Amino acid sequence: MDAVILKVSSKSNPNLVANALTGRIKDAGKAELQAIGAGAINQAIKAVAITRNIFLQSDVDLVCVPSFEDLKIDDQVRTSIKLTVEPR
Amino acid sequence: MDAVILKVSSKSNPNLVANALTGRIKDAGKAELQAIGAGAINQAIKAVAITRNIFLQSDVDLVCVPSFEDLKIDDQVRTSIKLTVEPR
Repeated sequence: MDAVILKVSSKSNPNLVANALTGRIKDAGKAELQAIGAGAINQAIKAVAITRNIFLQSDVDLVCVPSFEDLKIDDQVRTSIKLTVEPR
Repeated sequence: MDAVILKVSSKSNPNLVANALTGRIKDAGKAELQAIGAGAINQAIKAVAITRNIFLQSDVDLVCVPSFEDLKIDDQVRTSIKLTVEPR
């Protein structure tokens, strides 16, 4: 599956990210978040925890798989965290 | 299982946390991390990604389950993120 990657920043609202995540998982079976830096990773994890609570109401147990991914941004290599979110 | 909770701070070294996580998962089948604040959550997620890479070498696919947990610290309620790490 070709995943749309949801980019999360330190200013992202975790509830809005959770809404986007929920829709994406319902449509595609899984979703990917990309975050660079502590503030962004914090918002991303909060969004995953919120989304998890949403899916638990339908007895779906979401898990999250974190991995490192090097991105080239403005000719500089930045290490991002990719979070894949999917049913267990 | 009664899990030992590994507390992660913004100053924790992700490689050392990954070592502790690896040992705990090998001993107990799963591990729990607790982090409060963006810096701590950042280090915790890095540690999970490192630990995941360690286990992938043995074909074990680790996943992580984030949840909110309210803690009472010095009579104040703080919301922590708990990360449960276990084989898929």
